[in-house]
Amino acid sequence: MGSVIVRDAKGRVSFGPWDLVIQGLILVTLAAYAIETLPGLSEPITRALRLFELVTVGIFTGEYLLRVLLSRPPKSYVFSFYGVVDILAILPFYLSTGVDLRTLRAFRLLRLFRILKLARYSSAIQRFHRAFLLIREEMVLFGAAAGILLYLAAAGIYHFEHQAQPERFASMFHSLWWATTSLTTVGYGDVYPVTTGGKVFTFLVLVVGLGVVAVPTGLFAAALSKARDIEDQH
Amino acid sequence: MGSVIVRDAKGRVSFGPWDLVIQGLILVTLAAYAIETLPGLSEPITRALRLFELVTVGIFTGEYLLRVLLSRPPKSYVFSFYGVVDILAILPFYLSTGVDLRTLRAFRLLRLFRILKLARYSSAIQRFHRAFLLIREEMVLFGAAAGILLYLAAAGIYHFEHQAQPERFASMFHSLWWATTSLTTVGYGDVYPVTTGGKVFTFLVLVVGLGVVAVPTGLFAAALSKARDIEDQH
Amino acid sequence: MGSVIVRDAKGRVSFGPWDLVIQGLILVTLAAYAIETLPGLSEPITRALRLFELVTVGIFTGEYLLRVLLSRPPKSYVFSFYGVVDILAILPFYLSTGVDLRTLRAFRLLRLFRILKLARYSSAIQRFHRAFLLIREEMVLFGAAAGILLYLAAAGIYHFEHQAQPERFASMFHSLWWATTSLTTVGYGDVYPVTTGGKVFTFLVLVVGLGVVAVPTGLFAAALSKARDIEDQH
Amino acid sequence: MGSVIVRDAKGRVSFGPWDLVIQGLILVTLAAYAIETLPGLSEPITRALRLFELVTVGIFTGEYLLRVLLSRPPKSYVFSFYGVVDILAILPFYLSTGVDLRTLRAFRLLRLFRILKLARYSSAIQRFHRAFLLIREEMVLFGAAAGILLYLAAAGIYHFEHQAQPERFASMFHSLWWATTSLTTVGYGDVYPVTTGGKVFTFLVLVVGLGVVAVPTGLFAAALSKARDIEDQH
Repeated sequence: MGSVIVRDAKGRVSFGPWDLVIQGLILVTLAAYAIETLPGLSEPITRALRLFELVTVGIFTGEYLLRVLLSRPPKSYVFSFYGVVDILAILPFYLSTGVDLRTLRAFRLLRLFRILKLARYSSAIQRFHRAFLLIREEMVLFGAAAGILLYLAAAGIYHFEHQAQPERFASMFHSLWWATTSLTTVGYGDVYPVTTGGKVFTFLVLVVGLGVVAVPTGLFAAALSKARDIEDQH
Repeated sequence: MGSVIVRDAKGRVSFGPWDLVIQGLILVTLAAYAIETLPGLSEPITRALRLFELVTVGIFTGEYLLRVLLSRPPKSYVFSFYGVVDILAILPFYLSTGVDLRTLRAFRLLRLFRILKLARYSSAIQRFHRAFLLIREEMVLFGAAAGILLYLAAAGIYHFEHQAQPERFASMFHSLWWATTSLTTVGYGDVYPVTTGGKVFTFLVLVVGLGVVAVPTGLFAAALSKARDIEDQH
Repeated sequence: MGSVIVRDAKGRVSFGPWDLVIQGLILVTLAAYAIETLPGLSEPITRALRLFELVTVGIFTGEYLLRVLLSRPPKSYVFSFYGVVDILAILPFYLSTGVDLRTLRAFRLLRLFRILKLARYSSAIQRFHRAFLLIREEMVLFGAAAGILLYLAAAGIYHFEHQAQPERFASMFHSLWWATTSLTTVGYGDVYPVTTGGKVFTFLVLVVGLGVVAVPTGLFAAALSKARDIEDQH
Repeated sequence: MGSVIVRDAKGRVSFGPWDLVIQGLILVTLAAYAIETLPGLSEPITRALRLFELVTVGIFTGEYLLRVLLSRPPKSYVFSFYGVVDILAILPFYLSTGVDLRTLRAFRLLRLFRILKLARYSSAIQRFHRAFLLIREEMVLFGAAAGILLYLAAAGIYHFEHQAQPERFASMFHSLWWATTSLTTVGYGDVYPVTTGGKVFTFLVLVVGLGVVAVPTGLFAAALSKARDIEDQH
């Protein structure tokens, strides 16, 4: 089995084809995590899921220890991004065995960090990173514009609707929820303006706001095409 | 009528202008299928629709047999993509005559495969295919990102809303339905967060998620323009 | 006043600065039409609106007659696109005086054709026309794809939801309404799937469908940029 | 402290690093404004917020007076865009001390002009301005098209739905609210068509309308990329 251990120029360790097996295992544990939340599971299924959890945590712990041992120096892995992700993915299991059931729930969410382990093996994510760097400035500006717009929209709708719907527009923070669902065009329908002033204001906010929300995605699509062209030239 | 039978370089058969007639007939059968679902149809109309179904299945069967006979070798058609589509389009009729009414419904849906027969005659679909090949890698990455995002969104909202709304966010699979309608910005309004934590989480998910969902369409539009430019150069 | 009458190379007539006055008048009549629909208008306002309608129809009639008289030959205007629009814009008034109140409502809608008169004066619309010609083929294909998608979505959701919600998904035509509001991401919330099968199906339809609906707008935006570049080169 | 006062070529004054402090203070006052709207605040918190308001208005007033004194000539600042914004940001406080509580609310909204003070310090906004100039013509045309579309959509849906839902589609102005929420795809679900005619009409309006609303954002994204390319060339 020693022959499958590969060490790259930076001293990082990979396990060749075994990496794929571990990736597949991560996906299965994520599915198991989802199944665990189903209400009314029978006793045998619950026990099987618990056993599966035990086995996978064992495998992930073994993988972590191997990586620590094989890295030169071990510190380089322990304090690297993926080293932290890997420990976060197994820690919840060990921590939750000693504590009572209440706090157990929050720890379980940490298991989701396993999903980040999938990213370890994909080099294509770098193109996305380059595309993002190309339009970083615009993204910051649009982020600021979106923030200002959300604030002004919330302040305005609070002014128009607070008296007509004191429950739904109880404060500017409640109004921010309206601004979020409206400007993203989700529009659940749990909160919407009923006064004429509020409706006219909503119209104006949407005319300006849809652009602020939609333009960045267009920019990113263009940047991705550009990042690809630059790659092709090299 | 023999003069309208055309055989191309690969030995595939087409019926010249009669192909257009068959296409038109497919559209009419689709309309008839929709009309059949209307509640409270009168007896004469139901009978007319059944007769029409009989006639069209007869024509499609004749077309299928002709194609089998004329193809060289016949196998090349029977096991081709369109050969399978053509048999799936007429099979439901013959299968449903021998069985009881319960399973009949599922077979009827197979009739919708007739819609794929329309694609046979369009060569312009190839440009879409080329455009898709240009950005295949990005599409796979965005698909993976969308999958991870949906999973994390469902896990997160389950954590925040499960206790406040145990019915609507009963499990992570129920939460996935919320994630689907929210990230596509459909927002039916049948399920939405009510806790402060859930609302803040929704805000963060939407900020990241709208890009993941919207960028691929922008990429595809750019790829289509590119595919067109490449064509024009040849 | 004769000096403001301009006749272009094709023999078409325009009234110089008076054209702007007529455009403004059209906008005011559109506003008046909207105000007329307000419930509970006082008698004096109703009378004022009726008088205003009388005056504007008089002016538009005079304009129409002038154009007929001045065009060479008069036929060229009467049977032109704008000639038909102009007569449709004044005809409702004359037709509705002789008939009872029931059919009057439908005629009134014809008054909206006045809005098309605004297009007469804008030459910039031609750029939009050129951009549309650039991507006509793609638009036809996307139109066909959207049609097929709507049909399949309606047929599928009817299959999954008809038994669970026989009122809302009463037929495939009712299901088409669901498909329309879902694929455009409007999502009013008046109709949505409740079965697990219907929800999974909705997820699949939305993944495919959002692209089919959103890509054409991206294509058109790209075509408009292109049409502009071509103009700049000349 | 005199050394931090910088005067640029146009005679405008800036306070070097102190500008950043003032920007931060603006953000904090905006947060305080939001917190003030929370219902059920305790007495000490309300008093603290009032004190904070007093202090910040004092600082902003000092800043305003300094700018007036240091500008050459003082008029150039007082009547400049930012001069007006700066006075609007502090005026509400002084005006609201002399009047009763009713009108106080409206004045408070003027405080939001402080947000515009943030724009003073960002030079990157100029790129957005240039991109907008590139597509000004198209934007005007799309604005006109959107206006016409909204009007026709409201008139049409009023015709179809007024009799079936006289409350929700009471007038064309009520129908405009439906047109706004539908064409922006927000779809709150508070108002939607129920008649077959209204649903078919909605389908047609959405097919045309989504493009009119979505294309401008695509155009702006393309213009921003272009504006960037032009910059890079210089």
